[in-house]
Amino acid sequence: MTTAASSPAYRRLSVEQRRLQLIDAALSLFAHRAPEDVSLDDVAEAAGVSRPLVYRYFPGGKVQLYEVALGSAADELKLCFAEPQTGPLTRRLASALDRYLGFVDTHDTGFSALLQGGSVVETSRTSATVDGVRREAAEQILLHLGVTDTAGPRLRMTVRTWISAVEAASLIWLDEGKQPPLPELRDWMVDHFVALLAVTAATDPQTADVTRAALALESSDGAAGVLARRVAPVLSGAVHLL
Amino acid sequence: MTTAASSPAYRRLSVEQRRLQLIDAALSLFAHRAPEDVSLDDVAEAAGVSRPLVYRYFPGGKVQLYEVALGSAADELKLCFAEPQTGPLTRRLASALDRYLGFVDTHDTGFSALLQGGSVVETSRTSATVDGVRREAAEQILLHLGVTDTAGPRLRMTVRTWISAVEAASLIWLDEGKQPPLPELRDWMVDHFVALLAVTAATDPQTADVTRAALALESSDGAAGVLARRVAPVLSGAVHLL
Repeated sequence: MTTAASSPAYRRLSVEQRRLQLIDAALSLFAHRAPEDVSLDDVAEAAGVSRPLVYRYFPGGKVQLYEVALGSAADELKLCFAEPQTGPLTRRLASALDRYLGFVDTHDTGFSALLQGGSVVETSRTSATVDGVRREAAEQILLHLGVTDTAGPRLRMTVRTWISAVEAASLIWLDEGKQPPLPELRDWMVDHFVALLAVTAATDPQTADVTRAALALESSDGAAGVLARRVAPVLSGAVHLL
Repeated sequence: MTTAASSPAYRRLSVEQRRLQLIDAALSLFAHRAPEDVSLDDVAEAAGVSRPLVYRYFPGGKVQLYEVALGSAADELKLCFAEPQTGPLTRRLASALDRYLGFVDTHDTGFSALLQGGSVVETSRTSATVDGVRREAAEQILLHLGVTDTAGPRLRMTVRTWISAVEAASLIWLDEGKQPPLPELRDWMVDHFVALLAVTAATDPQTADVTRAALALESSDGAAGVLARRVAPVLSGAVHLL
């Protein structure tokens, strides 16, 4: 195989392989630059093909390529929260968040541009894609809590609010130059969910049941144990409230 | 005074009064309809003036009027969290949230359209206005916590994340037909903040200090007392974690 033959421009690919290659090239460009700063020429160059070839696969041009690349990213994000439903809840959430935050880390600029809006290629379809990821994440978390169709409005609102908080914290994290380190951010988000469940349990019987069941599965050497032992001294100053 | 003379079309107003009247008319239209569904004719009709008169005051047309109306709404929102720095933190937050959620309730459609993006009149200036409200809210809350310039990154991230959670919960609340009733939503958001402070205190010394100081000011018949007594039974199933 000569050098020329192994360069992207000369690789012979099937229609589907070529399509996936173009999506991959677009996704890595959109990941680190705002959509308005990516041209079809950039995509063609990154994939080692001609601009007309990109148009043959994506006659809708940049907007279509962005939507398709976004759809592919959305499929990846939707899988983040699909975790086996065994073991302590905090361990499942930590695994899911490792995948989610890994995605945020890899697609930093694209993630910000998409969620902060104002993008030139923003369409109602891109908004629907983002909402689809949020809905799927919420359904997966409700599955981990052992409720889906039976989840009441307070529990649903709790899960949806936490998902928005995770998005917001991810954007702040990118804004702060990816500080604190990813594992600390992940643990904080897990603790945040436990705390939000606990306070919602105060007024919603279903959330109380779900929280009790989740806490029973936690172990003292896991995330909930660490949290409980660290929070106890802070709350010891609040005994006058009981 | 005849009936005709007292109708909006015939009132004689100063330049500044007329300007404010047009902003008011625009704001109430933008509050209950998406910006793309409001025309300059609608604004002229609501204010009882001619379309050319609206253009004389706002030569930039609808986009300018929207930005000015938004700026006026932003000023109102910024004042929400400006609360005297006395008394328990939960009482101050409840007052602030009463004003904030009152605004969300009054400007429902406009609030959703603005925060969910994709509006035809979305510009970098409208995004900057929204960010300005978030920044001001964060500064006010840090003032209530007794820290501003001295607030470390974890405490800042905590406050900013909670503000995003409040926005998200407000949008979900509108989406759910304004259920639960506003006072329940407000109390839940206050509890959410207390919970988020407590879990952040587990790993951040500054947040631990701030949380201890805040809890010391809470009384057993206030929001923190009610929360403590309601959460205690749920957490009693977690003693194996300590």
